[in-house]
Formats: sequence, structure tokens, C-alpha cells
Amino acid sequence: MKTPTKIRGNHPRAESLRIRENLVEAFEDGAVARAGLIAHGRGEAFDYLLGEQTIQPARKAIRAAAALLLIAKRPVVSVNGNSAALTAEEIVSLSELVKAEIEVNIFYRTAEREEIIESLLVRAGAKKVLGVGEGNSACIPELGSERRRVSTNGILVADVVLVPLEDGDRTEALLKMGKKVIAIDLNPISRTSQKASITVVDNLVRAMPELIKEVKKLRQTKKAKLNAIIKQFDNRSNLQRCLSNILERLERLADERGLTG
Amino acid sequence: MKTPTKIRGNHPRAESLRIRENLVEAFEDGAVARAGLIAHGRGEAFDYLLGEQTIQPARKAIRAAAALLLIAKRPVVSVNGNSAALTAEEIVSLSELVKAEIEVNIFYRTAEREEIIESLLVRAGAKKVLGVGEGNSACIPELGSERRRVSTNGILVADVVLVPLEDGDRTEALLKMGKKVIAIDLNPISRTSQKASITVVDNLVRAMPELIKEVKKLRQTKKAKLNAIIKQFDNRSNLQRCLSNILERLERLADERGLTG
Repeated sequence: MKTPTKIRGNHPRAESLRIRENLVEAFEDGAVARAGLIAHGRGEAFDYLLGEQTIQPARKAIRAAAALLLIAKRPVVSVNGNSAALTAEEIVSLSELVKAEIEVNIFYRTAEREEIIESLLVRAGAKKVLGVGEGNSACIPELGSERRRVSTNGILVADVVLVPLEDGDRTEALLKMGKKVIAIDLNPISRTSQKASITVVDNLVRAMPELIKEVKKLRQTKKAKLNAIIKQFDNRSNLQRCLSNILERLERLADERGLTG
Repeated sequence: MKTPTKIRGNHPRAESLRIRENLVEAFEDGAVARAGLIAHGRGEAFDYLLGEQTIQPARKAIRAAAALLLIAKRPVVSVNGNSAALTAEEIVSLSELVKAEIEVNIFYRTAEREEIIESLLVRAGAKKVLGVGEGNSACIPELGSERRRVSTNGILVADVVLVPLEDGDRTEALLKMGKKVIAIDLNPISRTSQKASITVVDNLVRAMPELIKEVKKLRQTKKAKLNAIIKQFDNRSNLQRCLSNILERLERLADERGLTG
């Protein structure tokens, strides 16, 4: 059964509803888990608090993330069902631009779901997808879920991992292995956001195209300049600015609704 | 396939994860729609902002809601998949206490899902459930979705409708028909929250037992006193207090994480 919703163009949150439809479709196809639908809902709420726009501190984080991906020796983009459903093409473009491996890494792991996600990526143009099937896998220490299994050619040996839509446990485990983690997370106070080396507080659907643009802008830039961009970026104070943005918007929304005392 | 998650008791949000499991189970059984899983995720995010607790202004709203249900001539509890999945027993107890009809009213309407929700309610002890099947239905004007169909013995002739987990369109349509609407909604700035006669900003799972307790406390109370409780309650200023609570908590969380400038 396909979703019976007809999204009216004038609905106050039409864009958000269209993204949701893509996700529900991928759920139908088996790429997205039930927990992925719930996680998407949490994301919607935080995106609403951001005003469903890429805020200035997110742009700053995207620039630093682009620089980090460009100087990385073995970057990997870690892909789950939701990120493949929403941004398969951008994942492929980005990984080509920064010569990153693409690795499927999912929480509710089944061979079938791995293959469905792989096929979404292949359909989007991916030539190689790691993390599918039993071969070449190693364990990340201290991770309870099935996601501890990683590819020996991918995340295990990566220096920089881009993890869109991840959980806190996962990010911590990667950091303990000495990797730099770039997270894309709509909640600036989540554990993932707190722990990541660079946190992009933005909707994946908006952040990925911006990240690609920034990589294109910076790819002729000298290494020393890229290093300077990374060094100048302070994740903590950037998260602070994201949170201020949210608080200001909540206050403004309250004001508009006559809810200020 | 059942959810493979094992929720560790020490997980920071174990209770929230347990509630989620109940919902996913009801989804498996066909009571909850895919959109219901996403909506639950949005709720989780807002509940996190509330601190996953019943805040003081919510208690005040619950008291006013109990009084309104007790003086109502034809109260109806409107039930969708999520509310039946999470609080079928409380819905039945409450409706017995205030002599309310129970009516199934769902957005993604199928005969099968109506019946599944009905059976959840019957299993929880409901003797009569309206809104199932084609008989006895009328249309609420100005509602685009399938939810415009309501029972001629229920919502159509109700004076007070309790609508847990509703959307803004719906609440507005009911108000236009001259009904009082009690909403249970975790987002104090949603359209539903703004429009409802009484808005309980709380998780349904916590609010329903509290509402039952309050009804039991007030049910011997004289009508004049109940009317006074209702009159004293100001929904707008109460929503204002809910929002202040959320803003304060966000600031406190930021502070704990060293995110205040």
C-alpha cells in the first residue's frame, strides 16, 4: 500500500512532508527500519525548532567538515537506511569528490536490508559499497549493537568517518579508536553532537548538497589553508551558537503566538 | 519479526524506549500507521525537551480537563492508533468514569485498521466503540482527510471531545462545530495546542493516568465548583508557562554540557 496522503502545496510544512514521503517509500522497500521512521520523527521536531533552514553555525561546520574530508587519507561515509533513503545521490557524489569509501552500517542489521541499501546506493551511481555481507568484517570494541561490525577496508582503517544520523554509542566508539567523526545531527545537545569532532546541526537533506558545494569550492585549496580552516573551527562554541539559534526561534515563535508574558 | 532491541535498564532513556516498543508492537499488529511511528518520534523529541515528566502547568490543565469532562453532557474520547496502542486501558477507565463514548477516528482510515483498534479497546474492557465501519457516520465540514467522517452518536453530537495526539485541522473543525476540545499534545506551540479549549502539554502515557486520578478526586464535587475550576483556567497563559519550562530546561541542559557562553 502506498501512502494515501496528498500533500497540498500550501500546507505550512509541505517540504517536510515531501521528505517524509520519500522515507516512507524507502520503508516500504525495506531500506528503512521501523526505528528509522521514529528517528525521522524526532528529527522533524528538531528541524522545526531550527526553522527548517540551514543556520549560520551549520554552514561553518559544513566548511570545516569539507576541509577535514579533503585532507583525510582514508575517509569513509557510513550509511544507514535513512541516509540512503534521503540522500543516496549526494552520498555517491561526495564520496567521489573526496575519494571516500561508502560503507553500509546499520543498527537493525539483516543481510536483506544491507543489500537493499546497497542497491539504493548502486542505483545512485556507487561503484563500490563496503559493509554488505559477512566478508571482510571486524569488530569495533565496546559497541553492544550489531553495528560493531565494520569493514576491514572501510571504517576499521579510516581516519575520518562521516556519520549522518548516528547514535551516541557509535560516535564514542569511533572516537576511542582514534578516528575523527563528522556528525550530521539535528539535535545540538545529543550525545552524538557533543562527542563528534565536527557536528553539523542541520537536516541531512539540506546539509549534504551544501557539503558537496563546499568541497567543490575548497578542493583546489592548499593543505595548509585547509588545516587552518579545521583548526579555527571550535565545535563546542559552534554548538553553543546552534543552541542559541534554537532558543531564539522558540522565543520568536512564542511571541508570534502571543505566548510571551 | 519482533523488535530485536534489548533495552538495557541503565540506558539514559529506558522508559522512553519501552514506550516505543509498545508502539512498534502495535504497528506490527496493524493498529498504528507508518505516519504514527513518525509522529511518535516527534513526540519523543518534545518529551525530551519537557524532561520526560509531567510539568506543573500540565497538572493544572489536567485538573481543568477533568472538571470539563465531569460537567460535559455528551463527552467523547476520540481514539487513533497511537492512543489505543499506548493507553487503551486508561481510555476505557476514563470513559467509564465520565460516561463518555469512545470513538475510533483515524487519519489513514481502513476498515481493517478501525477493527484492529476496536479490538484493542474491547480487549481493554470497552463495551461499546463508535466510529467503526460505515454505519452511522456523518461528515465534519471543512476537513480534507478521511477523519471528517464521525459517528452520529458520538463526535457529531458531543459537547466535549478529548483528542489525544491530534492534528491542527481536526481541532479547528471541532471548535467550529461549537465543541470544546481537550488536547493532549507535547508541543505547546503546535496548532492543536494553540486552538484547543484546554491543552495538556504532556506525554499521553503519563497524562491519562493523571487525568483519571483527577476525575476520581473531583467526581463528588459540586457543579458550581467544577465550573469555577474551568473558568479559572486560562489556556493561553498555561501554554506560556509550558513554553517557559521548555526554554528553562533547554538552557539547563546547555549549561550541563558546558554550552552556555
